[in-house]
Order: sequence, then C-alpha cells, then structure tokens
Amino acid sequence: QGILERLDGGEIVIGDGGFVFALEKRGYVKAGPWTPEATVEHPEAVRQLHREFLRAGSNVLQTFTFYASEDKLENRGNYVAEKISCQKVNEAACDIAREVANEGDALVAGGVSQTPSYLSCKDKTEVKAVFRKQLEIFMKKNVDFLIAEYFEHVEEAVWAVEVLKESGKPVAATMCIGPEGDMHGVSPGQCAVQLVKAGASIVGVNCHFDSETCLETVKLMKEGLQAAKLKAHLMTQPLAFHTPDCGKQGFIDLPEFPFGLEPRIVTRWDIQTYARKAYDLGVRFIGGCCGFEPYHIRAIAEELAPERGFLPEASEKHGSWGNNLSMHTKPWVRARARKEYWENLKPASGRPYCPSMSKPDGWGVTKGARELMQQKEATTEQQLRELFQKQKI
Amino acid sequence: QGILERLDGGEIVIGDGGFVFALEKRGYVKAGPWTPEATVEHPEAVRQLHREFLRAGSNVLQTFTFYASEDKLENRGNYVAEKISCQKVNEAACDIAREVANEGDALVAGGVSQTPSYLSCKDKTEVKAVFRKQLEIFMKKNVDFLIAEYFEHVEEAVWAVEVLKESGKPVAATMCIGPEGDMHGVSPGQCAVQLVKAGASIVGVNCHFDSETCLETVKLMKEGLQAAKLKAHLMTQPLAFHTPDCGKQGFIDLPEFPFGLEPRIVTRWDIQTYARKAYDLGVRFIGGCCGFEPYHIRAIAEELAPERGFLPEASEKHGSWGNNLSMHTKPWVRARARKEYWENLKPASGRPYCPSMSKPDGWGVTKGARELMQQKEATTEQQLRELFQKQKI
Amino acid sequence: QGILERLDGGEIVIGDGGFVFALEKRGYVKAGPWTPEATVEHPEAVRQLHREFLRAGSNVLQTFTFYASEDKLENRGNYVAEKISCQKVNEAACDIAREVANEGDALVAGGVSQTPSYLSCKDKTEVKAVFRKQLEIFMKKNVDFLIAEYFEHVEEAVWAVEVLKESGKPVAATMCIGPEGDMHGVSPGQCAVQLVKAGASIVGVNCHFDSETCLETVKLMKEGLQAAKLKAHLMTQPLAFHTPDCGKQGFIDLPEFPFGLEPRIVTRWDIQTYARKAYDLGVRFIGGCCGFEPYHIRAIAEELAPERGFLPEASEKHGSWGNNLSMHTKPWVRARARKEYWENLKPASGRPYCPSMSKPDGWGVTKGARELMQQKEATTEQQLRELFQKQKI
Amino acid sequence: QGILERLDGGEIVIGDGGFVFALEKRGYVKAGPWTPEATVEHPEAVRQLHREFLRAGSNVLQTFTFYASEDKLENRGNYVAEKISCQKVNEAACDIAREVANEGDALVAGGVSQTPSYLSCKDKTEVKAVFRKQLEIFMKKNVDFLIAEYFEHVEEAVWAVEVLKESGKPVAATMCIGPEGDMHGVSPGQCAVQLVKAGASIVGVNCHFDSETCLETVKLMKEGLQAAKLKAHLMTQPLAFHTPDCGKQGFIDLPEFPFGLEPRIVTRWDIQTYARKAYDLGVRFIGGCCGFEPYHIRAIAEELAPERGFLPEASEKHGSWGNNLSMHTKPWVRARARKEYWENLKPASGRPYCPSMSKPDGWGVTKGARELMQQKEATTEQQLRELFQKQKI
Repeated sequence: QGILERLDGGEIVIGDGGFVFALEKRGYVKAGPWTPEATVEHPEAVRQLHREFLRAGSNVLQTFTFYASEDKLENRGNYVAEKISCQKVNEAACDIAREVANEGDALVAGGVSQTPSYLSCKDKTEVKAVFRKQLEIFMKKNVDFLIAEYFEHVEEAVWAVEVLKESGKPVAATMCIGPEGDMHGVSPGQCAVQLVKAGASIVGVNCHFDSETCLETVKLMKEGLQAAKLKAHLMTQPLAFHTPDCGKQGFIDLPEFPFGLEPRIVTRWDIQTYARKAYDLGVRFIGGCCGFEPYHIRAIAEELAPERGFLPEASEKHGSWGNNLSMHTKPWVRARARKEYWENLKPASGRPYCPSMSKPDGWGVTKGARELMQQKEATTEQQLRELFQKQKI
Repeated sequence: QGILERLDGGEIVIGDGGFVFALEKRGYVKAGPWTPEATVEHPEAVRQLHREFLRAGSNVLQTFTFYASEDKLENRGNYVAEKISCQKVNEAACDIAREVANEGDALVAGGVSQTPSYLSCKDKTEVKAVFRKQLEIFMKKNVDFLIAEYFEHVEEAVWAVEVLKESGKPVAATMCIGPEGDMHGVSPGQCAVQLVKAGASIVGVNCHFDSETCLETVKLMKEGLQAAKLKAHLMTQPLAFHTPDCGKQGFIDLPEFPFGLEPRIVTRWDIQTYARKAYDLGVRFIGGCCGFEPYHIRAIAEELAPERGFLPEASEKHGSWGNNLSMHTKPWVRARARKEYWENLKPASGRPYCPSMSKPDGWGVTKGARELMQQKEATTEQQLRELFQKQKI
Repeated sequence: QGILERLDGGEIVIGDGGFVFALEKRGYVKAGPWTPEATVEHPEAVRQLHREFLRAGSNVLQTFTFYASEDKLENRGNYVAEKISCQKVNEAACDIAREVANEGDALVAGGVSQTPSYLSCKDKTEVKAVFRKQLEIFMKKNVDFLIAEYFEHVEEAVWAVEVLKESGKPVAATMCIGPEGDMHGVSPGQCAVQLVKAGASIVGVNCHFDSETCLETVKLMKEGLQAAKLKAHLMTQPLAFHTPDCGKQGFIDLPEFPFGLEPRIVTRWDIQTYARKAYDLGVRFIGGCCGFEPYHIRAIAEELAPERGFLPEASEKHGSWGNNLSMHTKPWVRARARKEYWENLKPASGRPYCPSMSKPDGWGVTKGARELMQQKEATTEQQLRELFQKQKI
Repeated sequence: QGILERLDGGEIVIGDGGFVFALEKRGYVKAGPWTPEATVEHPEAVRQLHREFLRAGSNVLQTFTFYASEDKLENRGNYVAEKISCQKVNEAACDIAREVANEGDALVAGGVSQTPSYLSCKDKTEVKAVFRKQLEIFMKKNVDFLIAEYFEHVEEAVWAVEVLKESGKPVAATMCIGPEGDMHGVSPGQCAVQLVKAGASIVGVNCHFDSETCLETVKLMKEGLQAAKLKAHLMTQPLAFHTPDCGKQGFIDLPEFPFGLEPRIVTRWDIQTYARKAYDLGVRFIGGCCGFEPYHIRAIAEELAPERGFLPEASEKHGSWGNNLSMHTKPWVRARARKEYWENLKPASGRPYCPSMSKPDGWGVTKGARELMQQKEATTEQQLRELFQKQKI
C-alpha cells in the first residue's frame, strides 16, 4: 500500500529519525556541511542506521539525500578527498534505502531540501532545475513517494513541490518554521495553503524546533487549511532537543548548536508525550528529525501501539514504561518499573553551573532586526544579513 | 605489539565506549538484564558499533561479553525467545571483535564482569569456575589480553584476576567504585594494591561515576600503589554522564537511571577535558563506559593527537574545536568556530522545570545505612539489603 | 507641586514599594488576609518603612490602606484580638504618611483597592459606597491625590475612579493584570481607555507580574490610548519577583506564593534595568509593589539620576554600580566594583535541587478553563471558580 | 536570668539576625565598609530593627557594634561626612539595645569582631588594646554578656576572648569558618578547644556559610571538645543564603557577593529545618547572621515552640506552616495551608538564564594556592595574598 492509501485509510504512519546528527556522532557526516556522501563512502553505516529505524517501527525510510543537491555538494563538498558526484550520492542513497525497506514493511521516500541556489537569489527556473536533477534519479530508482523538507521559505518549497509533482507520485512537504512563519513572514497557515495548492498531499513541519513548538505550528497550518477549505494530511518531524528558548530561526541560533546540545536531548518519555499530542491533534505522519535516535522512534511506536494494534520489532528489547526493571535486585530501582514514575520524573542535568535556557544569537532575535522586518525595509533573510554585516545590528 | 609493549613504551592506548547503552538505544540490548545476546541475534549491529569505535580511534576492542557469564545469562536471559548458550554468545563476541580489529590497528580484549554467583554468596571455587568457563573461550579464540571490569567488591575482582592470570596473558582490572571504595569499605588504594598483587598489570576504574569522580578514585589508587611500592599502568573508563550528585553506589541510585539520563550526557568538549586530565594524572589507557558514543572516543583521540602524533580516521569528518563551522552563512555561527567558544560554553538544558541535581535513591545514601556500615553491624551489601527489606532503613 | 504639575512638567515621579510584603517579613502583617491594622497596632513600624522609602527616593507615599475597605476588614479582620474600626485604620494611615512626607519632598496618596463586595457580586451602588467611605477619610485628612490600585476587573476599577473623581483631586488607576487583560477578557488597551474616560489622569499596572511583563502590559495600554486619541500619564508598580512562568492571574497561582518566593527576588541591578526600560517606554510614575524593599526604590532613583539631576538621600550609603567595593582587601572583590560586572552577572540560586521555573496552579492556566472562557460559556472569575469546584477543571 | 543560667538550665536561647545586611537594604549601612555609624546617625532605624527581632523571638539583642573597633572605623569610616567617634558609635549601640531589651525578655550582648590591626600583623598587645577600648564601653553601659564573633583566625579570637574575660562577664565566641578550619589551617575542633581554654563558655560559628555548612562545622567543634574532655555550650548564627558552592573563605568569594545574593535567600521553611537540626545536634544558642530578617528568627521560635512551650509575639501575624491560607478564595491556594506542602516545595528561581551554582573567585579555591598552603611555603592569608598579587596565582 502506498503512502496515501495508508493515510486515507486512517493508518498512523511512523517516519524515521535524523540521519545527519546520528551519523555525525557515529563518525560519518561532517557538521557544518552536513552532506551525505557517506552513502558512497560508507554504505554499511547508512544501511545499519536505516535498519535500526525500520526495526524501531519506521514505516517510511527516507533516502539519505539531505543537502544532496548538486549546488550544495559542490558548494561544500570540497573537503571530500575524492570528488563524489551528486548522481552517485543520490543513487546510492536510493539503493540502500530500498534494500533495507525490503527487509520489512516500509516505503521509500526520495527527499529534497532547500538549496544554495535559492538563497543566492537564483531564479525559479534555475532552482527548479536543481530539484529536477534529483527527481530524475528518484524516478529511475522508483521510490514510493517524495518529500520536500527543510524549507525556510515557502516560495522555494512551492517550487520544489511543483517539480516533484511532475512525477505523478504523492508529495509531502514540510517546512522548518515555527509559529511565526517563514523567513519572509508568511504565516504557517498561509504556507500550508500554498503547499497544498501546489500539489502537496501531506504538509507539516520538520527540524529547527522541539516537538511542543512544532505541534503549535502544525496546529496553525491545520487551521489555515480549514479556513481555506483545503484538505491534506498532517506531518511532524521535530527535533529531539528541548528548545523552549529558540528565536524565529530555531535551534541554529542557540549558542549550543551544534556541539553542545546534549543536555537538551529528549527522553523516550518526552517522545511518548509528543506522539500522543500529535495524534490528538490529528497528525498521522509522525516522525523525527535531528537528534532522533532509533529508540526515540520506537517510543512513538510504543505510545501508539494501542491504536495501531502492534509493537515494533525492537520492542522485544524494551519493556513498556520501564517494566523491564521489575526484576532488579535493588528495591528502589524496581520501584521505577511503572508509568507514573517516568511520566512525572523531572530529570536533572547534573550540571549545576549551567543555566536551563540560553539567549539565541544573531539578528533572528535582535530588536533592530525585528523592527526592520516589521517596517518592511528589509524583508528577506538575505537583505537582513547584509544589513547585519554592514551595520552591526 | 601487545598491550604491555605499548604501555611500557609510553604509548597512549585509547579504549572503546559503552556497548550496552549504545546498543540499547539502537534497539539490540534490553535495559535491566543488559545481556549481550545480540552477538548471536544481530551480529551486524555489534560489528558496526565496533567499527565505529575503531574508526574513532580505539586501540582496544573489547569483546561484547559484558554480563555474559553462564549464571548471568541463565538468571536473566530467559526473555530471549530461543535459548542462546553462553558459549555461543562469547564465541560470537570474540569473532566479531577480531574481524573488526583486523580492519585496523587494534587489540582484542576478552572481558569478564561481576557475577550473580558472588552476589548470592557462592564460594570462591564456584565463582572462579564461572570466570574460567569464559576464559576457555577467550583462549580458544586467542584474544590479545584480558580485562576484569565492573566489580563492586575487590574480593571478587581478585578472584577474577587470579583466574585470568592462569592464561599467561596480560590482565587489566577495573572496579566500578568511587573515592569511598568498594562495597565492603576497602579503599581505592587498597583495592589497587590487592589487584596488582593478584596479577593485574593495569588497574583502574570503569562505569558508575562521571570522569571527574573516576579520576579522583584513580588518583587514590595511584597513591595506594606508590605507598606500597607497587607498579602498574592506570586505566579509566568512566560514564559519559555528569553525576556530581551520586552516592557511593553511583548512577544506578540516581532517579534518572536508566531511562532519564539524557540531560546528563557529556559533550565532546567535556571529553577533551577528561582526556587531558587523565593524561596529566598519568593514566595511559583512556576509554569510556556507559554513554560513550563513537564521537566521545574520537574526542579523546583528538585531544591527545599532539602527544600521539596522529588523528583517528573519523576526524576526516570533524574539525578540531568546531573549525568546520568557519564557512557557515550566519556570522554568529561562524563565531563559534574556535576553541575558546566551546571551552567556555555552559550548555543549557532547555528544561526550565527540571533541577540540576537529584538526590540518589536507596540505602546507599541513607544515614541509617551508613551508620550501620560504620558500626560494622552489617558489612556487606547483602546484609544491608536484608536489613533494608526488614527494617525499612 | 501636585502630582499632575510634576508629571505635566516632565518630571520623573518615583513611587514607593510594597508594604504588605515588607511588613509581613518584619512581623506586622499577616499573609493571607494582608490587612493593614498595623497602622493602629504598630504605627512606629509603618512610620519607619515610609521613612525608608522616602530616604530611598520615593516622591509619593501611599497611605497604608491596602485592603482597608470596611468589607475587607470585616471579612478577614476577625483574627485581630481587639476589633479595630475601618475608620481608625484609614485615619492612622493618613496621619503616618503625612507625618513622614513632611520630613521630605513627597506627596501623600490615598489608596483604594478591589473589594470583596465586587467579587461577591454586589451591585454598583453598594461597591461605590465602600469606596466612598474610604474617600471621606482621605478628604478629611486632605491627601494630595488618589490611587485606585490592584484591580483585576476593569469594571470595578472604573467604579472606583468615578468615586474618587468626586473629590476633585487627581486620580491614578492601576490594574493587576498582564498582557492578556482583565479577568473578563478586556484587553489592556481597552482597560486604559475605560479608566481614562472615567477620569483617571494616570493609568498603568501594579502587582501580580514582574517588571518585564508589566512593561509589556503598559505598552499595550499606551497603544490603546493612542488608538483612541486619549492622553494620560503612565505608571508601573510591578513585583520585585521574577515571574516569567506566571499564568494569566499572576504570581498568586505560582506554587511558591506567598512563602517560597525568595529565590525570585530581584537584585538592585534588575531594578535599574526596569527603571531604564520604563523610562524609555515613556512611563514617568515609576515605583514598585510586593517585594520592593527600600534598596529597590533607591535603585530606580540611582538609574534615573542623570535624567533627574540628583541622587536620593540613601545613596550616601551606596556606591553607584558597586563602586564601594573598590577598597576591598581582596583583589577579586575589588574587581566587582564596576557596572559591567553587575550588569552581566547571572546570579546563582545556590539551590541545585530546585528548578528555575514552576507550573502555575489552578484553573487560571488550565486548557479547559481557557477554552470555556473563549467560548463565553463562563465569562467571570466567579462563574469559572464555580465550574472549577463542580467539575474539577 | 543571665545567659549561662538560661543555657545551664536547658533553655533554648534564640539569637537575633543580621544587622549590616538588613540595614544596608533599608538604606543605613554602606556595603564594603559595613560599619555601624547608623547608631548615631539614624538611631530610630537601628531601634526599629532590634524591636522587630525582639518581637520575632530573640532572647539576645547584640549591640550593633560590628566592625566598630577604632581601627576599623578610622580605616573605612572616612566616607562619613562628619567624623563620628568610635566611642559614640559604641555607646549609642549599647543604649539602643538596652532600651529595646527592656521592652521584653532579652539580654544585651556587647560584641567585638576581627580587626584590621590583626590582619596588618600588629602584635598581641596592640590588638588586645583595640578590643579593650570597646570592652570599656560595654562595661560602662553594663551589657549582660559579651560575644567575640566573626573571626577567621583562631589566634585573634583567643586574644579577644582573653580581653573580654577580664570583665568577669560570660563570654561567647564564634568564628566565621567552615569545616576546613581557620585561615591558618587550624581545625574547627582545635579552634573550639583553644577558645574554651581561653575562657569562652559558649562557642560556635557565625556568618560566611549557610546553615548546613555551619552545622557541619559546629559538629566538628563538638567532637573536638569531647575529645579534649572540655565542656561548653554550642552556638550557631549562619547566613540566610544557600551557599553549597562556597570555597574555604565562604560567601565573600562567591561572584554574587554582596549585590546579587537574592536568589540564595532562604525561606522560612529552610530556617525551620535548620532550627530542628541545630537542636538535634545539641546547639542551644540558635540565631542568624547576614541575610536573617525578623521572619527568619520567628521561624526558629516557631519550630522550637513545642520544646519552649510558647510562641513569639510576632506569631500573632503568622500561621504555623501557612495555615493562614486556609481561608483563601482559590482552592489551590487553600491547598497550600499545610506542612507537607511547604516542607516539600522546591522553590523555583524564575531565572531560567541563571545557573544554580557558581564557582568562587579568588585564590581561596585555586589549586596553586591550596598546594602552597599544604607545602607550608605560605601559611597565612597575608602571605598568600602577597603571593597572589605578585604571581597571579
């Protein structure tokens, strides 16, 4: 069954987790560029991660093609000893994902994300050409459906959806925005409307914010669609980091990004809360982005097991709500083998010299920048960045 | 070159990280039992983790035989659908470690850990028989050296070392104790002396405490050995969690153990500090235990690269002190591409409703229990636990 | 010069601090009732506190008549051994304030606050009669102007202003609301408009929220007045507690209220920031409410000394920005004698087992209650409270 | 009844709180010098504070003569416009304390504290002459007993006790040290022994550390006295700030000292815990130092009311364990009217951008300084300070 058959039939579809962050920790992706040449260099590492997500309950394996557009790989890929072509990276990504998907009940989704071409103000034709180049590979490898994800500007996301729709396959589109909307100030509701009008059957958000914030944003998208009398399935793939202190541009502006985020990592119980809230809001494509490890995905599958009627394979190594502790020799550890305990735990950081929140860096939150944006003197990130550099906003 | 040739020659030997915690998150180990049947059930997952540690710089690959003694597997292993023999688990662990070690410059170490037999008061002969059974497999598979690790009682650790020494191979021994000493109140200095007298060439601590605490304990071991005019190499494999609030029994008594430890996870920069301090103290076998992921091991290798003269393979995907951020489009992210930034960062937890420290559970820290122990009315954990159950200490 | 002459002339007027909280800590006011019978029982204590505020820079001494309406004193005053009449309490309050005001350059303001009569749904005539009774005493004692403060419902505040205006004296009116508006959902902008139309020359907020929140609310009031083309002076008297975690009803719903608020107490430097921001927003009557001690008021006067041209008397015992530390014997304490140090200090709580934020209690923040309010099924606090009691919202 | 009759008879004696901190906040004492010229300049303010402590339950009113030695007043008092003589300050302090003591059941204690003469290495005769000058006034004014308090060096404290004993009046002696002992490294036990041998009938600690630390120190004093078979009454007057992060020299080295300590202020419930623990340890002179406000003293009296058989006068304005909230209109505030609630509350700071602990400044905690002290190269604070200045330890 394809993605739309599943969602139309009322199924809960579980996404996968965050490849660039997980593989960075495993030693195969470089923070900064975040490009996926590991599909060619170390396919066994990519394969193993796919397998773990599948085992944890993922119904969708996304090809590891994040930032794999030709312009991005050229732009940042020069640290790779031997030049690896965009085509090879994308093809290998498709092959690996399909190989693992065949080991279980999962769909393969080809993915595109925002491009340097757009950010450097190339025109619509040029930007679309970049997406089309990746799409050709996805068609040749016959992925099951397509995802346009991690877009900060709805304009570019719409272009991506338009290209992907040329394939005739179902298209999902998620933006990395918060409740304040995209970088030009388009509201989440309006973003959703434009994406659906462009052809997306599934819309939502991924990355940049924690699950609380993402659900808030998707709620606004849902309301926007309702007001416009449009229909679409909803999708969330948030961070696995607590980020209540983010500004408009999300976790990249937090001083801890990307090498000091550890104290923000969510627990499996936080994920169960997220899965339940997402479900209650009507989201049916529920996955994760940066920071999501296989056990986080398993937590979605376990929380929604009553609705779905089954547990994922990896639950053979996990007791619901810690019940695997019930045999511990220490009575006070046995006492942790229950839902109430983990639901109510307020976990300590072990870091008494650290605060609980940070002030985001950058113009994203400065008064001057916000006012400029409101005054419409500068409406794009590009323009603001230039102003920032010139005037020290 | 063997382990002793390396250490005697002044080399820094880098250990590997924590298998049970890493594989629990990947879906292959069950928290609670923490047994390693994955070597048989999912060898590809174990192999991949070894490979990542090797790539990150590990010079020693420990066979994944933690809690793989026959009594432990019988005791807790009954949840495994098909009964997997102790022999198969240990043999597979040796084979996988050797296969990956051959891909690089690493030694294979066979490992034993504390047994249910000792805790249930079996006698010396019986306990030694348990270790001997594992040793036979290590000899058959011809590991390079042996490690007795994760012992709370020096008496049992000494028995383990005595058995392992029968092999003629070098033996390392690490206890999971803090500065207060073992569970019978033997000081770290005395523990070290007894272990060296029993035949250990390398002594130190692993697990249960954070790196700060482990270094404090190893310092006491070093002083004990000096006072006794004994010589041995020092070894540390601490947790990758901040645990300043631990009681005598370590992180198991923290309310967050084992499913809420995320906010305590150390950063790569914390690890660099640890590696430097360990080196300065004279420790030359430097690795990690629960919570250590491949990127943590890489941080040891990067911190000590000036002394060792080379970087690990995985550093091709990592810039020293964040220098891979120097090309970022945002100026305030570029500003993070330097040592001073990451060294001084006090990372926020993003959890304003959580405290920074916890009170440990259990008698390990209660006044009544400590006083009893001081009064020598009850000197073993076993006795105290009984008192706890009877009298609600 | 009267209050309006001062404000119209562009002067900054500094208010006083919080009497009930300060005198509770000194042993003269009972938390819970918070009534001011101390004016009769212990006039020396009230006099001394007035004197300290005057010395710290207050230009306005408010009569200590908070909760001194007859219905309130009857309602809660029964714990006072000997029955003290409403008239005596109010008269003594006026006498003491005047006595101290004469020692310096200060005005006396008679104050009224919200009444049990209104909360128990008495009609306009009855509620106004309660205010009028206090006003008669203020007129007899010839206070300089009048303040209606601590109103959660703009309807009652308007009635208070109407009564006070009968006197012909200038009237200020402050509500204890946040940016979400009054308890019936009237926005801050609308509240300000209604108060000015009723006759208030000065409007603003006091109590219930920290200075950040109060300034946000007053900004909305200012915008409301501008939109309605009305003119009034602005006034803020916030809490001296950090309350970023408050719900709509303010600090009363925080679990720490009223006996665990200590870790939230603001520093003098926080107050300097507040004074500057208030000034920049155009507020010219700047004072404090619960938690404000004399040194907090002094901090307002010190921050705005450049604008005002003079320091308060109590600054003879205070060095600007800690410069009195410049003679300390320890070099690292001397290093604290500068503005940058105190401005940037992030003061620690010394409480590693406590969180930094709390979840407010009560229906004020529950989803159910908010939704009910939005649905207009229950629009008053009274109705919601009943629903709460019946249905466990 | 005199102080010794009371203590010998088994009475609990309640001390008073911290004058310099309380009067600094009220505007009468300058931080930095911390000298008590307010006794002459503003006797009404000093009188009122004494009265509040008396009302809160203090059985001892200490003359406000902290840092009132002639050398100190000369050294630092030059900021006082008109020169006020040492004699006047001390005489006025005695008169005010006696006046208020006569209003209730309280003793007057004349107090001396450490001197600049000692710190600048004057000899025994000179230092004793300084104390003797103050003693003469105490004798003329006929105080009830004498307290030597706030000494960092036991040598100077012993000299003070010897001088005070010349009077024939009972002498109490408290040092501002922690468990590590005095600035020359004399242990608390040894300090206590020396003070009792010099003639003190009551010994203990005051200032510099929180109640937890002070009780630890006094426990060591008690053990030292027992080992030496000496008898004395025990006394504690700790800070009303949480300082778990202090180094050897106490709160002065904390970055928050003295103008950012607010988040560390203890609650009344913390004080009740302190009073109970002090009582259980055998301390019978229980009071407070810097940060103690009248309501903190009342909390001691309330906690120990069962043992003493009565409540202080100020309890007429306070309900035990918050029971005065039982009439509140909001049900969730009424729910706070019980002991369990306040005992278990973990109060939030409202400061999510601040840490819970600080690193102390200064050589007091630096490794280099500690090692120097251990190596006996520099054994006095004086010498270390010089080294610090020369070598940037």
